Amino acid sequence: VATPDVLVGGRHFRTDWCSATDVGHRAAAANLADIAAMGAVPTALLVALCVPRDLDQRWAEQLADGLAAECATVGAAVVGGDMSSSQAIIVAVTALGDLQGRAPVRRSGARPGDVVAMAGRIGQAAAGLTVLSRGFRSPKALVEAYRRPAVPYWAGPAAADLGATAMIDVSDGLLADVGHVADASGVGIDIRHDVFEVTQPMRDAASALGVDPYTWVLTGGDDHPLVATFPPTVTLPDRWLVIGRVTDGAGVTVDGRRYTDGPAGWDHFAR
Amino acid sequence: VATPDVLVGGRHFRTDWCSATDVGHRAAAANLADIAAMGAVPTALLVALCVPRDLDQRWAEQLADGLAAECATVGAAVVGGDMSSSQAIIVAVTALGDLQGRAPVRRSGARPGDVVAMAGRIGQAAAGLTVLSRGFRSPKALVEAYRRPAVPYWAGPAAADLGATAMIDVSDGLLADVGHVADASGVGIDIRHDVFEVTQPMRDAASALGVDPYTWVLTGGDDHPLVATFPPTVTLPDRWLVIGRVTDGAGVTVDGRRYTDGPAGWDHFAR
Repeated sequence: VATPDVLVGGRHFRTDWCSATDVGHRAAAANLADIAAMGAVPTALLVALCVPRDLDQRWAEQLADGLAAECATVGAAVVGGDMSSSQAIIVAVTALGDLQGRAPVRRSGARPGDVVAMAGRIGQAAAGLTVLSRGFRSPKALVEAYRRPAVPYWAGPAAADLGATAMIDVSDGLLADVGHVADASGVGIDIRHDVFEVTQPMRDAASALGVDPYTWVLTGGDDHPLVATFPPTVTLPDRWLVIGRVTDGAGVTVDGRRYTDGPAGWDHFAR
Repeated sequence: VATPDVLVGGRHFRTDWCSATDVGHRAAAANLADIAAMGAVPTALLVALCVPRDLDQRWAEQLADGLAAECATVGAAVVGGDMSSSQAIIVAVTALGDLQGRAPVRRSGARPGDVVAMAGRIGQAAAGLTVLSRGFRSPKALVEAYRRPAVPYWAGPAAADLGATAMIDVSDGLLADVGHVADASGVGIDIRHDVFEVTQPMRDAASALGVDPYTWVLTGGDDHPLVATFPPTVTLPDRWLVIGRVTDGAGVTVDGRRYTDGPAGWDHFAR
């Protein structure tokens, strides 16, 4: 399996919010997570890097360090690349993975009655991004969650082995990405909001910034948990959190109701 | 096998010199040629595209048309991609190929005594680029050679089957790319200049523009011929042009003499 992803400086990352090493971790993680979400083990990255002519060489070296370090966590490596000059920093990564004989898990196989389960954390990276965008540097746990995603790479092949019918990694936000599964599978998906952990740093930041923390959980990206659907007969190990059900119909609901983006929408069903 | 390549608008192509369809052909050709140069058959492209927000949608559609059409010439297809906004147009392509059981042909296997042979045309695309850069639109054969490379994709697997010891596709210029083979193999390579065809349109343009046409042949890129080294015992089919020999020593010579870049350098050995 192979998957491309492109990060644009100033759009997908800011060099004042993330070190070059962080950007390397994030760029690799986003791609390696996509490989895992197909049920495969990541094996290699190819990196096309465009940078301004006056960029400090150390920035590129630290980017490479971050890419290599994130790859090393799954036994993969950067095996090739290309470079050019450009105005903005562009990091275009293609990841390759090995299904090891498994059939690929697609987005299109979810069936009504399936259980929806998640591996990994959610909402913390989005909270970290909000913290940074408001000019703060703490809570550190949230900022670090944004800078260094903790992707549950193990969960991709594990889900395939358990018989997952569909899978995706959350990069655009839980509801958006689960919506891709619902659309591709021709089903509806209902998510339960009260199963998600809202950590103390998330509560603190939410309170300080006047944000509903479930906005981070339901619509934030960057944490890259894996979400998979399983037949109801499958016994899921503890590391999986059941977050909802596949239904007849179409689209994504939260607690049985349509989610309208933003705090106003959230008020419709959360309180 | 897998290979990445990135094209930056204004640097690797100009939208006033090439249609979007041309850019698609060129981006695909550059990557598919790299696959062929490893002895593999191209199978798929992944395309990460960054474009300015105000780009005409038709430009992107025509780019996709060009990518698809070039892929179709080898039975490959664009199978995935990613998009983002950016200031300049960035086309980052990763190509995948199938060795079909062959061992990959690397740059590092050339041995003293090997024959150096080329498949495909050379110098015409570079001549077309010079024509365009001087503000002309003809000779049309040269401009078209620049806009639509005619890559000898067949030659990659064929060279591998013939027992090629090293191979590369010429994208940076013949001497530069043959130099990569020489360096990787720890050998010298001597090129004979008088074996190359200088077509009538090249002669016409060279005369009109005051350029030595062998500058295009020896230092121009964009045609993507394949150059391979073969043991001297191999009988090469007619479609291969013998262009030189692998020698003891290091670096690249032309007619036994060191080539110094530019017309002045050329005078040292060509006249």
